[in-house]
Amino acid sequence: MDQEWLNDLFFRQQSVRKAIANTGADGILLTTDVNIFYMTGLVFSGYYYLPVDDEPILFVKRPIGISGERIFFIRKPEQIPDIFAAKGWPFPEHLLIENDVVSYNESVRLQQAFHCRQTSNVTVLMRRIRMIKSNWEIGRLRISAERHAATYARIPICYHPGMTDLRLQAEIEYQMRRNGSIGIFHAFGLNMNIFMGSVLTGKNAEMPSPCDFALGGAGMTPLSPVGANGSLIKEGTTVMVDMVGNYTDYLSDMTRVYAVGDIPEQAYRVHQVALDIQRAIEGAAKPGVGCADLYHLACSIVEKADLTACFMGTKQQAQFIGHGIGLEINEPPVMSPRSKDVLEQNMTFAIEPKFIIPQVGAVGIENSYLVTETGVEKLTHFNEDIMPLERQ
Amino acid sequence: MDQEWLNDLFFRQQSVRKAIANTGADGILLTTDVNIFYMTGLVFSGYYYLPVDDEPILFVKRPIGISGERIFFIRKPEQIPDIFAAKGWPFPEHLLIENDVVSYNESVRLQQAFHCRQTSNVTVLMRRIRMIKSNWEIGRLRISAERHAATYARIPICYHPGMTDLRLQAEIEYQMRRNGSIGIFHAFGLNMNIFMGSVLTGKNAEMPSPCDFALGGAGMTPLSPVGANGSLIKEGTTVMVDMVGNYTDYLSDMTRVYAVGDIPEQAYRVHQVALDIQRAIEGAAKPGVGCADLYHLACSIVEKADLTACFMGTKQQAQFIGHGIGLEINEPPVMSPRSKDVLEQNMTFAIEPKFIIPQVGAVGIENSYLVTETGVEKLTHFNEDIMPLERQ
Repeated sequence: MDQEWLNDLFFRQQSVRKAIANTGADGILLTTDVNIFYMTGLVFSGYYYLPVDDEPILFVKRPIGISGERIFFIRKPEQIPDIFAAKGWPFPEHLLIENDVVSYNESVRLQQAFHCRQTSNVTVLMRRIRMIKSNWEIGRLRISAERHAATYARIPICYHPGMTDLRLQAEIEYQMRRNGSIGIFHAFGLNMNIFMGSVLTGKNAEMPSPCDFALGGAGMTPLSPVGANGSLIKEGTTVMVDMVGNYTDYLSDMTRVYAVGDIPEQAYRVHQVALDIQRAIEGAAKPGVGCADLYHLACSIVEKADLTACFMGTKQQAQFIGHGIGLEINEPPVMSPRSKDVLEQNMTFAIEPKFIIPQVGAVGIENSYLVTETGVEKLTHFNEDIMPLERQ
Repeated sequence: MDQEWLNDLFFRQQSVRKAIANTGADGILLTTDVNIFYMTGLVFSGYYYLPVDDEPILFVKRPIGISGERIFFIRKPEQIPDIFAAKGWPFPEHLLIENDVVSYNESVRLQQAFHCRQTSNVTVLMRRIRMIKSNWEIGRLRISAERHAATYARIPICYHPGMTDLRLQAEIEYQMRRNGSIGIFHAFGLNMNIFMGSVLTGKNAEMPSPCDFALGGAGMTPLSPVGANGSLIKEGTTVMVDMVGNYTDYLSDMTRVYAVGDIPEQAYRVHQVALDIQRAIEGAAKPGVGCADLYHLACSIVEKADLTACFMGTKQQAQFIGHGIGLEINEPPVMSPRSKDVLEQNMTFAIEPKFIIPQVGAVGIENSYLVTETGVEKLTHFNEDIMPLERQ
């Protein structure tokens, strides 16, 4: 852990304490990997408890090897009251718990273990605190974005004629892992089960999926119903590559489109509309701008181009064009019609205007951005045109 | 969907109805991918409701395209009461919900939407129903196991001297994906975040992890603290490969050990103890045998060999030697000291006796089994010795 990170951890504790105080609660209890990591720099199985007016207490189930004055090894939450009693610590009357994520049974056990009269959900609050990145976090995200772009530069060597979308994806994954991808990454919510990203070609690009991603795809099996489905990559279709940038714990997001042989001129025209949307958003986005306004800005360009029917899907259309990025691939702010989020300096987000060209595939673009003092800075630099996919 | 699967779905509905009736509840509400898939053959974002005495009702958020008389599209659970009212359906007084998995807030919303006076947890019950596999399910698991073994046969070509554990793992993952691995797979519980499996070499094999796997490993970053950590694969160490068998939705589990150059004779001796444990369990396991008894059988062999201190870890030791497999990699039954599970025909499980040889790495074995009428049948057939890892 470097000093900058240690300073970050201290600052985060201060921010969370202030947020607890604002809610009128006495403490916060965190149990999910991402939030425990955010507060401690570690992941452990157990509970992180921060009283509003005292130092944090860690209740650890696994692993062994973590030690400190306020660290206690437990097997189950029912052991917590005895530790409080032995130390003479006051129980929180009002406790904040991650109730959007923690299971019903676990939450009930924790509410009993902490003897609290009232609990409130802290999932949304923690996601809002994590939304503004420190310089250290931005540095990590920059590394992901750079390696992300470097990996995409190798996509043409992954291709050979006659391969399926799955086979191309396997080759890209291999390049990702060789280039330092962590493999696994975190997403918020139940409907975000995807492997390392999505490769969509031809008709599969418009297949609806239960997942909350910008586009769908049928996937390999009914239990994994998103993304590549074994389609042969055919002449005259596009291949949209939207793989995750998990080269550090901070995730970048990036999409590029490739053409196999000659594709209809329409695909290039529609792709240009996606680039126009991106440019308009780059011009408009700065601290103080509403994320719903960015969504509507995109939609106004889509309407003018008469492309509403194929924007963000056809059969099923996603109701957002961008989202925050960080330790999870889908953080606030969200660029959606009813979003109340407003851009602030040091937010990081991805914008992904995408269109379906029926029978051909998807076109469009996705890049990751940092909100600066006066605008936005693009983090994922790589050719944005539709690129030919041919063995180099 | 083939006819055998459709018959399975019908049979599952009957089993679940019977289980609901046994609890005295009026209906069951399922929301997790694995259980919705188990009951319908589909994954959708939404809710599957099965009344004890009527046909199932599906409340679907995404994707579009699913249709039927008892299928309703909703945006949120608060729309459910109106549908019940319009149809004149009775609300369940006592509803079963997956309260070990569904978030506190989601469960509370669902309890309100279904106007129920009482809810009980059905997570455990569904896991017990899924524990006994149909012939169709066993057929799918056999396919995974066969491809799993076929992929392991290619591990030697993945290796070259001077590579790291991560690089070797990337090569194995590539072989897996080329051989049809689905990539993503399901695990039960919060502490099961792993990518496609684990490659452990040298000292990293005994590093404790917060995850509930047999062995640990430091992992690539503090946020992904399990498995390979970038260790150079050195002469005189072992490499333990424990990658998932996700070649169908039904998962096999399998571990093999490789030697790099000359490793201490002790490693071979201890590995033989693991094979002895496996043989003893293969001889003892049959319907009616307690899973705790299998655990104690393993421990008695370990004690006789005076290897207790390095069995299932050193610094941190796992308290199980086997687990059920199926749609999730960790299903019941569990082979642990306090397990009340008893083997039944058509259960499928993995046994994984493993030891740490300090400074050298891990040795041991893992195979997947089917419980037959009279014993067990091994599903993962491949050389079980410590194999030399040298470029072929």
